[in-house]
Amino acid sequence: MTAKKPLALVAGAGAGLGQSLLARLQAGGMTAVGLGRTKPDHTVGAFHTLDLSDADATSGTIADLIAAHGPPKIVVHNTAELVIAPFTETTLADYQRTWTSMVQTLIILAQSVMQPMVRGGGGALIVSGATASLRGGARFSAFASAKFALRGLTQSLAREYQPAGVHVAHVILDGIIDTARSRDVHTLDPAKMMKPEDIAEAYWQIAHQPPSAWCHEIDLRPASEGF
Amino acid sequence: MTAKKPLALVAGAGAGLGQSLLARLQAGGMTAVGLGRTKPDHTVGAFHTLDLSDADATSGTIADLIAAHGPPKIVVHNTAELVIAPFTETTLADYQRTWTSMVQTLIILAQSVMQPMVRGGGGALIVSGATASLRGGARFSAFASAKFALRGLTQSLAREYQPAGVHVAHVILDGIIDTARSRDVHTLDPAKMMKPEDIAEAYWQIAHQPPSAWCHEIDLRPASEGF
Amino acid sequence: MTAKKPLALVAGAGAGLGQSLLARLQAGGMTAVGLGRTKPDHTVGAFHTLDLSDADATSGTIADLIAAHGPPKIVVHNTAELVIAPFTETTLADYQRTWTSMVQTLIILAQSVMQPMVRGGGGALIVSGATASLRGGARFSAFASAKFALRGLTQSLAREYQPAGVHVAHVILDGIIDTARSRDVHTLDPAKMMKPEDIAEAYWQIAHQPPSAWCHEIDLRPASEGF
Amino acid sequence: MTAKKPLALVAGAGAGLGQSLLARLQAGGMTAVGLGRTKPDHTVGAFHTLDLSDADATSGTIADLIAAHGPPKIVVHNTAELVIAPFTETTLADYQRTWTSMVQTLIILAQSVMQPMVRGGGGALIVSGATASLRGGARFSAFASAKFALRGLTQSLAREYQPAGVHVAHVILDGIIDTARSRDVHTLDPAKMMKPEDIAEAYWQIAHQPPSAWCHEIDLRPASEGF
Repeated sequence: MTAKKPLALVAGAGAGLGQSLLARLQAGGMTAVGLGRTKPDHTVGAFHTLDLSDADATSGTIADLIAAHGPPKIVVHNTAELVIAPFTETTLADYQRTWTSMVQTLIILAQSVMQPMVRGGGGALIVSGATASLRGGARFSAFASAKFALRGLTQSLAREYQPAGVHVAHVILDGIIDTARSRDVHTLDPAKMMKPEDIAEAYWQIAHQPPSAWCHEIDLRPASEGF
Repeated sequence: MTAKKPLALVAGAGAGLGQSLLARLQAGGMTAVGLGRTKPDHTVGAFHTLDLSDADATSGTIADLIAAHGPPKIVVHNTAELVIAPFTETTLADYQRTWTSMVQTLIILAQSVMQPMVRGGGGALIVSGATASLRGGARFSAFASAKFALRGLTQSLAREYQPAGVHVAHVILDGIIDTARSRDVHTLDPAKMMKPEDIAEAYWQIAHQPPSAWCHEIDLRPASEGF
Repeated sequence: MTAKKPLALVAGAGAGLGQSLLARLQAGGMTAVGLGRTKPDHTVGAFHTLDLSDADATSGTIADLIAAHGPPKIVVHNTAELVIAPFTETTLADYQRTWTSMVQTLIILAQSVMQPMVRGGGGALIVSGATASLRGGARFSAFASAKFALRGLTQSLAREYQPAGVHVAHVILDGIIDTARSRDVHTLDPAKMMKPEDIAEAYWQIAHQPPSAWCHEIDLRPASEGF
Repeated sequence: MTAKKPLALVAGAGAGLGQSLLARLQAGGMTAVGLGRTKPDHTVGAFHTLDLSDADATSGTIADLIAAHGPPKIVVHNTAELVIAPFTETTLADYQRTWTSMVQTLIILAQSVMQPMVRGGGGALIVSGATASLRGGARFSAFASAKFALRGLTQSLAREYQPAGVHVAHVILDGIIDTARSRDVHTLDPAKMMKPEDIAEAYWQIAHQPPSAWCHEIDLRPASEGF
């Protein structure tokens, strides 16, 4: 009997960073499983299409994965729901959707994986933040509010679970990620965008930090980015 | 015909800080109106009992108040929904209720007052934060997540509305407020608690800062508080 | 025999904010004394010309003032030494002078006043910070480094002296102060500058906060200032 | 003719983290050179004994190294000068020595290496921070003030040099590093200390981040550390 490959989950595994994360995790010898609302045309490894804000669907799917593969060793929360609009044009439904897509999904994900990871001997939960995690800019009230919420939640999880062996880190992505969609909507020179495979490598390194030197928060940006 | 007294609103005007705010606003010559789910036994000025997370009820009540008194000059957001529990004992409903009580209420309040204040020539919106606005502690995942969200939202409002004449400030209350309830649930010497009338005075001063020197964020704590 | 007026000191009392602080303190019934390298042409109250980075001169002058008036009740640290230059054009001497003018002067000032204020029953020490207290911008390496240092020192003083009754606050002045010199060197519309008398009023309020609600850090900026 | 090994410098290369950094850099195929006041009994690679706060000695030694090896690709600033004492027992000389040992040494180091690194096609400068880089605690006034200064300076360097190809990062070491000396002076279980080789690995990874995803600030602490 051979040892199973350890399980890695990426919640929010669309084209771009999500897929690069799956590729890096798979290249590292893990069973990389993507979760998300929309299955990309091309996906690395397995992909489960589900609404991550649906507690039953998500906890059920993750329980099945754990039954098959054991508790995950690496879990990434990477859902995104960008709203940019003046306050007067941002509806209550926009705030609710943004919070549900980014914060509720982390709550449900963490409820599904933290205790199994503790029982499984530890692991890592990495959460994708953004510039708006630290700064509530004009026209970003919905997005910043949800990203701030995510950061507070992630800090609480770190303080509660790190002593129990689960590393919890928050990564502030301060730049435009180079994806097909970014190239469509931004005029920025792609050479000044963040390459998703470079970000994925940073996540991989964080997930493998030894417990004597765990980071909780790290900011990543292109060399060219003003900050 | 005499000039009307200017209108001041306190959303979350229960016993304690809410009532001290109403008292200070009234003493300053304003028509101070409290809004909240539960009318305290003794209330200063008028009080409208309503669910501040109900958009229709809140916007309707505030529209009526504006029709009667003109746009408010001072608005305070002071709703509270404290949850302290380990992550495993904090349900999705706890997170939703905490967000709804603290963040949704500010969204709806701001949607009801910001444009009228701009048209009325300016004013001040002051939001009550807490220690958990800056630090997600263990057992505070729901509360910190909502307080972080509130801080991000408040920053966005400041950046959007200050150039239009509405001062938006976030006050970090880093201590136990001396209320009847605090004395019941905390063993802390009341001499080491924050007096609600002292906090109310600070809000009054912030609301009257001249536009050449507006603060956005201020922390308040008792002299005895470690930080 | 009548009660002496309480003593207030402003270290760095040049034209502009320093003089407005002296005027506010004097108007509040205090004996306001300015200290600094250069006596302005017109000064409010007494002024002692001295190098605040000279420990003997400063401690001697302050000891004499305390002997005459009793321990100060309000002390403001407001020295400034602005250097803006690319790193390659900033000399070691620039860093040393910036640190000496802004940080060494606070060390010496605090060594001269903190224990007397404790013995005198308390008081307030307020330190002027700047945008560069929180952000090390390009071309601001010397200034930001010294302003960061000042902020760290001020935090330590607050944590050590507040339980002993001396309120220690750090004010982040995020804007151009309207002075004759600012109008010379900046093209900014003076209507968008911070009025020194408005800042002085904020300092006065901070110095009079009751011990149940002391602020440690507050940012002040004009309504028009982006941040 | 074979390619020279690239040069790496560690300023503050005493026993503990300094030596682990040298070992990691050497293992990575670099010519690792330590600089510092006191040569450890056992040192990895070359070591130049010099006072890093002496501009002439430091710039001369580094110029010689660059002449021999080419511009450095990785430079670490890791000098330490810990003072823990109540404010009343911290002398002006303590503040000056702390600043000189930690801040002046970075100024001189950066003046010696930044332009050569730019001309050499880029590289990385990594600066060791501490818990006190973010929090001025009681009894830490000298140390925190200098660590805050270092952080401000490092930010300015990042903003000025990253667009020119030199990555500048600030690492907050939030824990006790496991060294022979730490085991002597602390009662903490060494299992709860940070292993210097684990920290060194993190620095190595930071120095090799691709320019599309550079971090500026990262905190590292043991799993067991409260924060």
